[in-house]
Amino acid sequence: MNQEMPNLLKQRAELTPKRLAIKANNEEVTFEQLYKRVQQRATILSKHGIRENQHIAILMRNSVEMIETIHAVIALGAVAVMLNVRLSEQELAWQIDDVEAEYIICNREFQKNVKVYKTIVCEDLFIHHVEEILPSLSQVSFYHDKVATIMYTSGTTGNPKGVMQTYGNHWSSAISSALNLGLQVNDRWLLSVPLFHISGLSILMRSVIYGIGVVLHERFDAAKMNQAIMRDGVTIVSVVTTMLKQMIEQLEKERYPESFRCMLVGGGPVPEKYLLECQEKGIPVYQSYGMTETASQVVTLTPEDSLVKIGSAGKPLFLNQIKIMKNGQECQPNEEGEIFVKGPTITKGYWKKEEATNKAIKNGWLQTGDQGYVDEDGFLYVLDRRSDLIISGGENVYPAQIESVLLTHPNISDAGVIGVKDEKWGQSPHAFVVLKESVEIDEIRAFCQEKLAAYKVPKYYTIVDELPRNASNKLLRRKLKDLIKDNHDVEN
Amino acid sequence: MNQEMPNLLKQRAELTPKRLAIKANNEEVTFEQLYKRVQQRATILSKHGIRENQHIAILMRNSVEMIETIHAVIALGAVAVMLNVRLSEQELAWQIDDVEAEYIICNREFQKNVKVYKTIVCEDLFIHHVEEILPSLSQVSFYHDKVATIMYTSGTTGNPKGVMQTYGNHWSSAISSALNLGLQVNDRWLLSVPLFHISGLSILMRSVIYGIGVVLHERFDAAKMNQAIMRDGVTIVSVVTTMLKQMIEQLEKERYPESFRCMLVGGGPVPEKYLLECQEKGIPVYQSYGMTETASQVVTLTPEDSLVKIGSAGKPLFLNQIKIMKNGQECQPNEEGEIFVKGPTITKGYWKKEEATNKAIKNGWLQTGDQGYVDEDGFLYVLDRRSDLIISGGENVYPAQIESVLLTHPNISDAGVIGVKDEKWGQSPHAFVVLKESVEIDEIRAFCQEKLAAYKVPKYYTIVDELPRNASNKLLRRKLKDLIKDNHDVEN
Repeated sequence: MNQEMPNLLKQRAELTPKRLAIKANNEEVTFEQLYKRVQQRATILSKHGIRENQHIAILMRNSVEMIETIHAVIALGAVAVMLNVRLSEQELAWQIDDVEAEYIICNREFQKNVKVYKTIVCEDLFIHHVEEILPSLSQVSFYHDKVATIMYTSGTTGNPKGVMQTYGNHWSSAISSALNLGLQVNDRWLLSVPLFHISGLSILMRSVIYGIGVVLHERFDAAKMNQAIMRDGVTIVSVVTTMLKQMIEQLEKERYPESFRCMLVGGGPVPEKYLLECQEKGIPVYQSYGMTETASQVVTLTPEDSLVKIGSAGKPLFLNQIKIMKNGQECQPNEEGEIFVKGPTITKGYWKKEEATNKAIKNGWLQTGDQGYVDEDGFLYVLDRRSDLIISGGENVYPAQIESVLLTHPNISDAGVIGVKDEKWGQSPHAFVVLKESVEIDEIRAFCQEKLAAYKVPKYYTIVDELPRNASNKLLRRKLKDLIKDNHDVEN
Repeated sequence: MNQEMPNLLKQRAELTPKRLAIKANNEEVTFEQLYKRVQQRATILSKHGIRENQHIAILMRNSVEMIETIHAVIALGAVAVMLNVRLSEQELAWQIDDVEAEYIICNREFQKNVKVYKTIVCEDLFIHHVEEILPSLSQVSFYHDKVATIMYTSGTTGNPKGVMQTYGNHWSSAISSALNLGLQVNDRWLLSVPLFHISGLSILMRSVIYGIGVVLHERFDAAKMNQAIMRDGVTIVSVVTTMLKQMIEQLEKERYPESFRCMLVGGGPVPEKYLLECQEKGIPVYQSYGMTETASQVVTLTPEDSLVKIGSAGKPLFLNQIKIMKNGQECQPNEEGEIFVKGPTITKGYWKKEEATNKAIKNGWLQTGDQGYVDEDGFLYVLDRRSDLIISGGENVYPAQIESVLLTHPNISDAGVIGVKDEKWGQSPHAFVVLKESVEIDEIRAFCQEKLAAYKVPKYYTIVDELPRNASNKLLRRKLKDLIKDNHDVEN
């Protein structure tokens, strides 16, 4: 039985036509208007030759047009392949070839990067001039098991793989999130993370399923984010740690309005320093844990636990289960191991990578590659990406923990840690720091020695202007490794 | 693919153990406590011989023990058959035989009514003395397609049929309702309708899925309902029209607190008189339409429309679709016909009644037997149960409309209308009225003549002390017919 659901946007437009769907710059679009534009766009795309089940790549910046394009592609029954606009020509070509995309729909500025492929430039589609709309083109129903989108893993490790996300994945993710965070008719979700990442796309899906508005920003800007929370009726925001940090700093002594009810933080553990700062400012922080393969968050800290279990990513969402495995055995509470996740948000697999799929998903359990533990009350603590784990003298050293300590130093504004080869210990931590004010390396070392076990204290230090991050602002530790390849051997 | 979901209560107890699950009399039970008791109860029931897939009938009054029993039965993988405690011995025997129940779990007071069957008296199960709990008995997962409960249709028409409600039905119903009404961590749902009806059971399901508390009343009492709204933090109440009416009257000049956010009214259209009264008192009324076969509401008026489309039951919930059919054709907007409903909350069928199932459900569309129309904006207006439809001189006459008019008369407190044989017109309306103060029949007739087309004005009038209603307070028009069988011919 392949369960059916209505065409999400069509149903939403019929149920609550006048509600705000998107607010972007000075434009406000209702669900009714959005649906009409999507029908227009689908009609044009159909005339360009886009058909059901084709893979259609989208290479665009966050914009109302991008949202319309995504909806139009899936309305036609095609699969939307979400491409990262920061990728190089070669990287794009790799993904486009791998996914066998029929067309690339792109902003004009990106056309040069995909010039060898069949492209449709979004700016050339004058949808408001379409007179004849072909509503029969739109799928009346979506099916749980059908692939809606493909997204390549951010590539912090290995070659990117195309993660297939079904309608059932997106639906279950939105529902699980609502059961945890609640849902109010007046909710508005601020979207400044890229729509081509699951963090952004999942907000779009929620908007349509919940019938709530998205306040859309093209890119992250701390001041504009704070402004939107202050003035645009935003109740929920999705960010990653570095964004949160900049927003708090920019906020200074101001406070968010009472109606702002959720700062959802993903993409890695939040250092305690920021959590405490948010507590002071009355900002309701919900840490979460998720990935492209789980169609966004699968573990989130519930309201009543957010101040009790600082540092935890929380408990699974209602439809999800987690377990910690080590050497093929399920771990005891508080025992460290690898995090496994189960539930209807788990991807049906990697596009044309059966072996990788079978290795990653067994009996419905996804092996995340991340390290962590679950405490005696069932709360997950994410320690680190396994690939970033530093093993020093047989001890596991988690870069995130060291970074968290470095960030408590008053002169340090950002920090990243990787493992480098060490004759004696196998590996040693190497720290990269961005400074607010000048400070001696020896002082930083002494600061770490005070707060960390000896084997965790970084042996090497590099001062940099900024840390390499991907479009989701996630730290790219492998790029840190590239930075120092000439200096000393790096484990890859 | 038979989609999996976690054992609902187990997952809820693990995620939010300390939240209130049930408040009844002076007892407060958290989800953690409830789950423990359910495990104890399941252990005992297992020792009595209850096994997976058996049909276990439950014949109990609303109580914490009844809730524990329902959860324990389904935790064992058995199917809970919900029996109406108002049924006669013969009626119970009919349902028990039809459903092939292995055991009846009942309150002691009802044992005499089912004495020829294998009974387990709830009061004899001293669950808190169970030392050995067998957690392995509990199902770890539920499956969408598995039958959780069977409920016999209320029998306003024909012989009762056993409606099979799957976990998927209950799940989808709870989710669809939350997408419409919203969901707040502090929500509390007041349950005074019977748990053996879908109106009550669906609240229990929502409580566990949402993680919100149920304030449980054994039976409806207007004063106690109002008290609970005033003092027990109740935010949502489910009622039918007559209950609403009594609550408003009992409320007098008081107002519900701001936190009370939803009066969900089912079981038939609400006369405009009450809607206006609620509007005056600031009571947020959500009319809804649903039935046992749809696992509760499938159509509900959204907040923004509740004051604009008075008299409508609203639009479908997110996962549902409706259409109006007449002579095998889909009706135009505003054209009257029979209501059809589609979606994942629709029953998988009637127990061992394949023919009735195939007649009622075709291609996923349930033929409801109810009359109505959808206006140009997509709002459903339920006119009446088809079986109660009066056809007079070729014109359709809807009892509910006449009742609604009768209720606007200052001296009338309740009204029911049925069709009786008429030599000239085929059928004529016969009105049954409950009086507040004495009034001449001729005055009532003149009152109706003023407000209704001639063919709709009741020809006969009977004054009664109260109207026959079922345990959900739904008007039983067939019982009105019984009342007057000796006076004149009645259409059955």
